[in-house]
Amino acid sequence: MPAAPPSTTFSINDRTFRVPARPVAVICIDGCGDEYLSTSLAHGRMPNVARMAKNGYRGMVRGALPSFTNVNNAAICTGLTPAETGIGGNFFLDQETGEEVMMNSAKFLRADTILAAAAKAGRKVAMVTAKEKLRDILSKDLDGIAFSSEKADQAALATHGIENVEQVVGQKTPEIYSAEASLFVLRAGVALIEQGLSDFCYLSLTDYMQHKYAPEAPESLDFYEAMDREIGRLLELGAVVGATADHGMNAKNLSSGGPNVIYLESLLTKQFGEGIRVICPITDPYVVHHGALGSAVTIHLPEELDLAEVAETIVRMEGITEVYDREMAALKLELPADRIGDLFVLSARDVVLGRTPEDHDLSQLGGQLRSHGGRYEEMVPMLLSEPLSGEYVSRAAGDPRNFDIFEFTCNGGDA
Amino acid sequence: MPAAPPSTTFSINDRTFRVPARPVAVICIDGCGDEYLSTSLAHGRMPNVARMAKNGYRGMVRGALPSFTNVNNAAICTGLTPAETGIGGNFFLDQETGEEVMMNSAKFLRADTILAAAAKAGRKVAMVTAKEKLRDILSKDLDGIAFSSEKADQAALATHGIENVEQVVGQKTPEIYSAEASLFVLRAGVALIEQGLSDFCYLSLTDYMQHKYAPEAPESLDFYEAMDREIGRLLELGAVVGATADHGMNAKNLSSGGPNVIYLESLLTKQFGEGIRVICPITDPYVVHHGALGSAVTIHLPEELDLAEVAETIVRMEGITEVYDREMAALKLELPADRIGDLFVLSARDVVLGRTPEDHDLSQLGGQLRSHGGRYEEMVPMLLSEPLSGEYVSRAAGDPRNFDIFEFTCNGGDA
Repeated sequence: MPAAPPSTTFSINDRTFRVPARPVAVICIDGCGDEYLSTSLAHGRMPNVARMAKNGYRGMVRGALPSFTNVNNAAICTGLTPAETGIGGNFFLDQETGEEVMMNSAKFLRADTILAAAAKAGRKVAMVTAKEKLRDILSKDLDGIAFSSEKADQAALATHGIENVEQVVGQKTPEIYSAEASLFVLRAGVALIEQGLSDFCYLSLTDYMQHKYAPEAPESLDFYEAMDREIGRLLELGAVVGATADHGMNAKNLSSGGPNVIYLESLLTKQFGEGIRVICPITDPYVVHHGALGSAVTIHLPEELDLAEVAETIVRMEGITEVYDREMAALKLELPADRIGDLFVLSARDVVLGRTPEDHDLSQLGGQLRSHGGRYEEMVPMLLSEPLSGEYVSRAAGDPRNFDIFEFTCNGGDA
Repeated sequence: MPAAPPSTTFSINDRTFRVPARPVAVICIDGCGDEYLSTSLAHGRMPNVARMAKNGYRGMVRGALPSFTNVNNAAICTGLTPAETGIGGNFFLDQETGEEVMMNSAKFLRADTILAAAAKAGRKVAMVTAKEKLRDILSKDLDGIAFSSEKADQAALATHGIENVEQVVGQKTPEIYSAEASLFVLRAGVALIEQGLSDFCYLSLTDYMQHKYAPEAPESLDFYEAMDREIGRLLELGAVVGATADHGMNAKNLSSGGPNVIYLESLLTKQFGEGIRVICPITDPYVVHHGALGSAVTIHLPEELDLAEVAETIVRMEGITEVYDREMAALKLELPADRIGDLFVLSARDVVLGRTPEDHDLSQLGGQLRSHGGRYEEMVPMLLSEPLSGEYVSRAAGDPRNFDIFEFTCNGGDA
């Protein structure tokens, strides 16, 4: 086992982090609604997490809206709201060009990261993501290790701060649509700490399994058990471990079967005419498991339309829970006003929003959809290996956010 | 042990109940946010609930808004939304008299109950509540047993369907502000089933303990362990057990200490003048533990005021999450339009709403407030002793409600 790192104190984005003289591992379990933990724990499949919940802390934190991956990972890595990170979805519509722009690179991130700051303060930082898209955004200015399990075999010393990743981790680069894509990330964290290559890790998984399986599915239980094993190895290495999720996950199906979709662009175009653009901010290069259908969309309207009338039409639809104009979305949902449309819409626990039927490929869903993006995937678990102390006891009981996770992990306990 | 009851089928409020040939006990654990279960389970204090979660079902259901006790108990006992029960709070303002009317009697309930229907179908029904106020509402047309632990010693055969309750239960009438007030309800359920006095029970507890204690407090852990013991006795008696909550519970304090209150009537009166009436629907005769402060209020405005302007002012306040006019509140929150004000307002996870400082007695809170009423206390657990089968598997994965609990308990498993 490598020598203990020094304790380190640094400040970034109006927060001060007091990093203990132990390895630190913060995990974002993508799509981990709290019921995944409850069910896996009930079946005795997460003994290490059970110990964390008993001896450390398990509670609920509020994520950022819309409850999507990039939005929340950007918030977590900076400790800031989407209004401040500029990442309010995977996509935004460039109003000047009319093009949908994918926010898959660091240039879209409007704030510095806790990871880069920790590295500047002398910690050996490693960021491992399942998907390459996230690595690009979150490795901004990072002097450390940053790679994805998706492209683990392509990591090079000059660009990723590491090489021979497969050898380091002891596993081949996994298929991105697999449980292994996430488990590889955790195993990489274990290997990097064990081999003294890192003492401050961010490990961000993928929600392929949660999109595909309900908490009680045997595949899900096996997956959570396998995650628990790696979390146990991190704890054995003496790491202070914090875990949260970017968003929860709910089934979004009709009682008659098949996805429960409101094709908003189709409906609005029929009523108000051409020119309405519905943007699905869940869209990214990996849509097999959700068909780019989530519970939040933003809408651009032609100037001649009466925004209030369109908003009123939408909010009256069954399955729609909240509708905001741009300014209110910025104010109440903490979104970057210049990267959303004229309206921002959230849907119900069992409802997703789409553009038109042609825009969404449902062929690979197997007739069942699980997804996220709305208010009902906003609350997520927070797990800490150390018991809370000092001000963090009352902060945890207030309205803690998932993007407080680095602060809770570093400062929250007596580690 | 008494002879098994016959299986019974009856229909009420567009639902059909197929009651198994076993005793049935539905429990409403007042104020049981899911984290109370998670924390108590993590500490090994709920072995019977742990078995239910493993062998039966544990998941999340959506309560009725506002997330208050009477609202949700009325919904649970009828299987209907507040729009249909007419119970959208403990209080409403009678527009003709200008009086605040407490909805503490069955005459305010606009629907028939599942309990009364089960009794008509031949089941031996018992309803035991902690608070007397609930007994009054929910015993509507019930040919069976109905008493509260608060006034257990006053139950008479002619009016309550039972006498000598203390002797039946084997315990003295408890103090209403106590853990015993809830435990007495559960013990009464056990006693009634054991003695063959009932085979279809509704057991509705009180949230005094949850208002007072966070999930990890030793007092809370002891309380949940004691509840688990009674649940275990119900299971031993062969009962099919279902449990849910009326609402969750969150701390509502300033980081500097003391309750985090927006005194809405004060603020609005200052800006818009006299005549604005804020109604706190949590208000009831038992306010020691929450000072009549919850996360939902309804507001009556003088006719001359511009409703949209007032609504806009409120929604811009920090800590306010949702503002609806009467029609939208009826549509999106499922509320009875004639029993709410012109505006309906929900507040954040850590914020409560009040009238004026003079209207709320905070002296007994001990400087700390835990309360409910808003969106962040809407999601609650559902526990079932039997594994789900048939259509109930997919219904549980959809958007099940806490007021589906009788149907899930009776029909959901293979009992």
